[in-house]
Amino acid sequence: VRTIKLTLAYDGSSYAGWQRQKGSKSLQETLETAIGRVTGQAPPTAASGRTDAGVHALGQVVSFQTDCPLPAATMARALNAWLPSDVAVLEARDAPPGFHARKSALRKTYRYVLHDGPVRDVFRSAYCWHVFRRLDDAAMHAAGQVLVGRHDFASFQTHGSHAKSTVRTVHGLSVGRSSTDEPHLIWLEVEADGFLYNMVRTIVGTLVRVGQGRAAADWPGRVLEARDRRRAGATAPPQGLFLVRVVYEPCASPT
Amino acid sequence: VRTIKLTLAYDGSSYAGWQRQKGSKSLQETLETAIGRVTGQAPPTAASGRTDAGVHALGQVVSFQTDCPLPAATMARALNAWLPSDVAVLEARDAPPGFHARKSALRKTYRYVLHDGPVRDVFRSAYCWHVFRRLDDAAMHAAGQVLVGRHDFASFQTHGSHAKSTVRTVHGLSVGRSSTDEPHLIWLEVEADGFLYNMVRTIVGTLVRVGQGRAAADWPGRVLEARDRRRAGATAPPQGLFLVRVVYEPCASPT
Repeated sequence: VRTIKLTLAYDGSSYAGWQRQKGSKSLQETLETAIGRVTGQAPPTAASGRTDAGVHALGQVVSFQTDCPLPAATMARALNAWLPSDVAVLEARDAPPGFHARKSALRKTYRYVLHDGPVRDVFRSAYCWHVFRRLDDAAMHAAGQVLVGRHDFASFQTHGSHAKSTVRTVHGLSVGRSSTDEPHLIWLEVEADGFLYNMVRTIVGTLVRVGQGRAAADWPGRVLEARDRRRAGATAPPQGLFLVRVVYEPCASPT
Repeated sequence: VRTIKLTLAYDGSSYAGWQRQKGSKSLQETLETAIGRVTGQAPPTAASGRTDAGVHALGQVVSFQTDCPLPAATMARALNAWLPSDVAVLEARDAPPGFHARKSALRKTYRYVLHDGPVRDVFRSAYCWHVFRRLDDAAMHAAGQVLVGRHDFASFQTHGSHAKSTVRTVHGLSVGRSSTDEPHLIWLEVEADGFLYNMVRTIVGTLVRVGQGRAAADWPGRVLEARDRRRAGATAPPQGLFLVRVVYEPCASPT
C-alpha cells in the first residue's frame, strides 16, 4: 500500500467547505469521487485542516492510501481530468509510510485579502473583503506583531470549537499593500503551528479596526490578554481567506 | 434633459451578454433596473458595443438621457448600491448633448487572456482560455503585426453578423507574457476603430495556432488576404475576453 500526498488549489466559492456533509457539495467529496474514478478505490482522505464554505486554497495538502500502481505524476494528470474547473491537483507525490496531512503538519500559512478602494472590484468579490474606506496597513502590521509568539489565543477563536488547548505559536504575521497596479489590495499573512477555529478571520476583524482608526495600536494586545472572544473584533467574511501552504518535517516529506 | 456617460466594469460570467433578451439575465437589463431605482425613470441605454455571454468589461461605456438632478458622482454611488457585486459603475459624468456611447466612439481596445501552464488556474477558469502547452508569445506578436492597419477583416468575423463593411482599422496589436509571478499568463491587446462580430476571438484562435507551432509566421497574413472565414483559426472561447476601454473625441467627451 502507498501513501499519496496531494497538493491542491481550489476556489471555495461554490462549496460548503472542505468536509464531506450530507446534502451539500464539499471539496472532500469532490476529490474522493475523482480518486475513485482514477484508482478504482475509495480511500478516506485526510486534509491538513478543514476550510469553511467560501474559503479558498492555494496549497491545501491531502493524504490517502491506495494500492493503485499509477506513477504519482500520472495520477495528478488523471485527477485533473476528472476534477471540476475550480479544483486542481498541483502535485502528487509518494509520501513515507505514516505520513498524514493533518497529524504530520508542522506549520500552516493563511493569507487574507482586503480591498479598500472606493468602488468594488467586480472580479474579486468572491476573493476579498471590500471595506470601502482606506485602511492604514502599516498600523495594522505594527499592531499585529504582539500576536507573534506562543500565546493563548482564546480571544481569537469562535466558540463552538472543541480545541483542547487554545495555545498556539504564531511564527510570523505581516500586513502589506499590493504593488502599484492594484493599490487597493491589502494582504495579511499569518504562519502558525496551528490555528483555532476562525482564528485568522478574527485576527483580521480585530486588526481592521486598528486600520480604520477605530481602535488603538495596543488594543490587539489587550484583546489577546483578555482570553475572551467577546473582546475581539468581528469575524471577517470567509471569501478573503486562502490556505497558502503547509510545511512538514523533512523526514515526513514525500520522496 | 441631461446626457450621462457611465464607465462600467463587469464580470460577464453569469450573464447572457450585454443585450437585453427575454428569459435571460442581461447586463443591459441589470443596469437599466438600477437606473430606474436611482432616477425614477427608465431611459433606454446605449453601450459602446455589445459583449457576448461570458465576456467581461474593465471599461464599458454606456450613455443615457435623464431629467434626474443628482450630481453625477452621487448617481454613481447610488447605482453601485443597487447593482449586484459583479457589476460596478467606475465613473459617471455629464456628457455633451448628442453624446452616444456607440456612435461617438472613435476607438476601442479589447484584451484576451490565455493561460499556458500545465495545470489550470482554479481562480481564472472564468477569466482566461487554458491551452495547456506553452505558447510562443513572441512569435504570436510578430505574426499578428500584419493585421495592423486598414484591412478587410472578412476572414475574422463569424458569419451571421450584419456589418455593412468588413473594413476596419487596427491601430495596434500586441501579445505579451505577464510579469514573473504569473509566468503562464499571456495577454493579447487589440485597438481598432471598430470590431466585427467575434473578430478578436477569431484573431486569437488564429494567432494561437502560430504560438503552438501549428501554423507558419506568415499564415495570418494569408488568412487576411483570403477574406474567407473558413481560412482562419477557431473562435477562441468567450471567457478570456475583456473590453478594456473606449476612446471618444475630445469634444464629445464629458465635461
